[in-house]
Amino acid sequence: MTGIKDVALDVGLSIATVSRALRGQPGVSADNRHRIEQAAARLGYVPSRTAANLATGRTRTVAVVVPYVSRWFFSTVVHGAEQVLSGRGYDLLLFNLAGSAEARHRVMQTHQLTKRADAVVILGLQPTPAEQTWLADHAARVVLVGASVPTWPSVTIDDEAASVTAVAHLAALGHRRIAYVGGSAEEALDFATPRARLVGFHRAMSESGLEADPALERVGGFTVAGGLAAGHDLLDLDQPPTAVFCASDEMAIGVLRAARDRGVAVPEQLSVVGIDDHEMAQFLDLTTVRQPVAEQGRQAALQVLALLDEDPPEPVPARHLVLETELVVRSSTGPAPAGGAAYGIIAGRGHRS
Amino acid sequence: MTGIKDVALDVGLSIATVSRALRGQPGVSADNRHRIEQAAARLGYVPSRTAANLATGRTRTVAVVVPYVSRWFFSTVVHGAEQVLSGRGYDLLLFNLAGSAEARHRVMQTHQLTKRADAVVILGLQPTPAEQTWLADHAARVVLVGASVPTWPSVTIDDEAASVTAVAHLAALGHRRIAYVGGSAEEALDFATPRARLVGFHRAMSESGLEADPALERVGGFTVAGGLAAGHDLLDLDQPPTAVFCASDEMAIGVLRAARDRGVAVPEQLSVVGIDDHEMAQFLDLTTVRQPVAEQGRQAALQVLALLDEDPPEPVPARHLVLETELVVRSSTGPAPAGGAAYGIIAGRGHRS
Repeated sequence: MTGIKDVALDVGLSIATVSRALRGQPGVSADNRHRIEQAAARLGYVPSRTAANLATGRTRTVAVVVPYVSRWFFSTVVHGAEQVLSGRGYDLLLFNLAGSAEARHRVMQTHQLTKRADAVVILGLQPTPAEQTWLADHAARVVLVGASVPTWPSVTIDDEAASVTAVAHLAALGHRRIAYVGGSAEEALDFATPRARLVGFHRAMSESGLEADPALERVGGFTVAGGLAAGHDLLDLDQPPTAVFCASDEMAIGVLRAARDRGVAVPEQLSVVGIDDHEMAQFLDLTTVRQPVAEQGRQAALQVLALLDEDPPEPVPARHLVLETELVVRSSTGPAPAGGAAYGIIAGRGHRS
Repeated sequence: MTGIKDVALDVGLSIATVSRALRGQPGVSADNRHRIEQAAARLGYVPSRTAANLATGRTRTVAVVVPYVSRWFFSTVVHGAEQVLSGRGYDLLLFNLAGSAEARHRVMQTHQLTKRADAVVILGLQPTPAEQTWLADHAARVVLVGASVPTWPSVTIDDEAASVTAVAHLAALGHRRIAYVGGSAEEALDFATPRARLVGFHRAMSESGLEADPALERVGGFTVAGGLAAGHDLLDLDQPPTAVFCASDEMAIGVLRAARDRGVAVPEQLSVVGIDDHEMAQFLDLTTVRQPVAEQGRQAALQVLALLDEDPPEPVPARHLVLETELVVRSSTGPAPAGGAAYGIIAGRGHRS
């Protein structure tokens, strides 16, 4: 088995220097650190982490807490974070809560995170005051993605602004009866994003001089199936909307499907807009507010490296970094129908998506 | 900070018993183990793993090696595995290769896996002989998903049979010029799945008395974008196919989009079938061969528990478990056009997807 001695011989440096370099300790030049890492990789040497951990208190592991790893947004953020961290020799410990409050408590308020990882990246969850206190009391190094608290670095988009962009686009097209499909009240409790997008929806409606009709708000659970159900529900109304704004592309795709199932033409009879620019949005000609997704993970990983006093490979982002979003207009949105929603008249006609 | 003493006092058992239970060692009744785990969770106690590791040689961590974590199939398998493993107190260390051969070598042939985890689940990669030797020499406990070697337990579908199902469906509809969109030669080297699906395509064509035309085989890279490019390419041919079989739903969705861009009616002029039953397949009315995805991760996790001599929560699956697939007929497939492909005649007509 390759030992640390082999690495030291290979690079012509002392065992102590090699050990410091591979444990991420200071006192090694960037050049030597690079040579040592290369040699260790080539020779297949990995330091015994368990022993090293006891010596340094470092695990060279970053924990990532994910609400649902199987959802496109979260797995793409994980991918972005992992690319940066693995490049710096950090392993990634994945905690998938899969929507379970019990799992959330077990992960967020025990020593599981603090003992097994040098830092924690929390995706999409709004830490409760109790969780903030617990993690702070235990000196956890935390970076948030998709949520923000004053104490920890964070990477977000401006969710309120994203909603305003989407609604302003619909208002400019003459829509007045605009429906909203978002998260549930329980989701709003746990996740920062659904709440901020709902707040943005109300703000934008009011700024556009429109009234948000509570009868036009639906829960879509951030899934295609949820959007489909919400879409059918809205199209069943006596006074259906002429436009639907969905807080995610997956819900918007469900609404598009509901429209197609009923022969409601998009965008002639119904406009639909989402948030994300999901891989499928382009395919389905969905107008959306694009957010950078893998980039949120990448920027969070840079924050982690800074917290751990690593030399970041590039300037460390702002402590509360807000990434830009942009409206991508495709053909799921168009001018409001002249007489309001009147599906009966042209239902059954061909439609495009 | 909650100590092991607090847990012992709470359940009225000795510290030695509590320690054994929380380290996964034998000699504790299932009932006591359950009570101890409950109390530890309630009190927020997590044993110091680093110290425990040195004592037991166990890390209570399972490594999962994933070619691309951001792809739907892999993140869904990870979700399934994680649900079983976290329920048994195992953490999941994620290695995302992101298609990098260098990352693959670093992960698969160093001590990173063997020192930091009790077992390894490898998704979708065909281990090379060198990797097999290395992992076997270092006594790694390995479970494969989507690939199979004699030495290790595995969970797969019968990829060849899945291809045969898809092609037989097209042949029964009268199609003779059937195109194939799959992985590249390099992908066939690294991944078991693309090769087996291509082999199945050729077998099914020959069994149906049809000739597989090399001019109708395309590389789609298992992405929507790759399928879109392959679809345009096939529809550009002087003698285009009347049906396209894609080795994944994401590539099939790309082909559907290419057809729509050109006004080629699906299924009247072109039939398209995939493999997966991706969440979007239903929405797009895509005929596909459904495979259970999260279930592959779940079953692999049960194999891991068996390798680690844990009491599995249910009977351990067969050592080389092959899960069933089934044809799901939707409206992207239909009878072959009478005169073969003749897009010119009705191009521009309305189409449905």
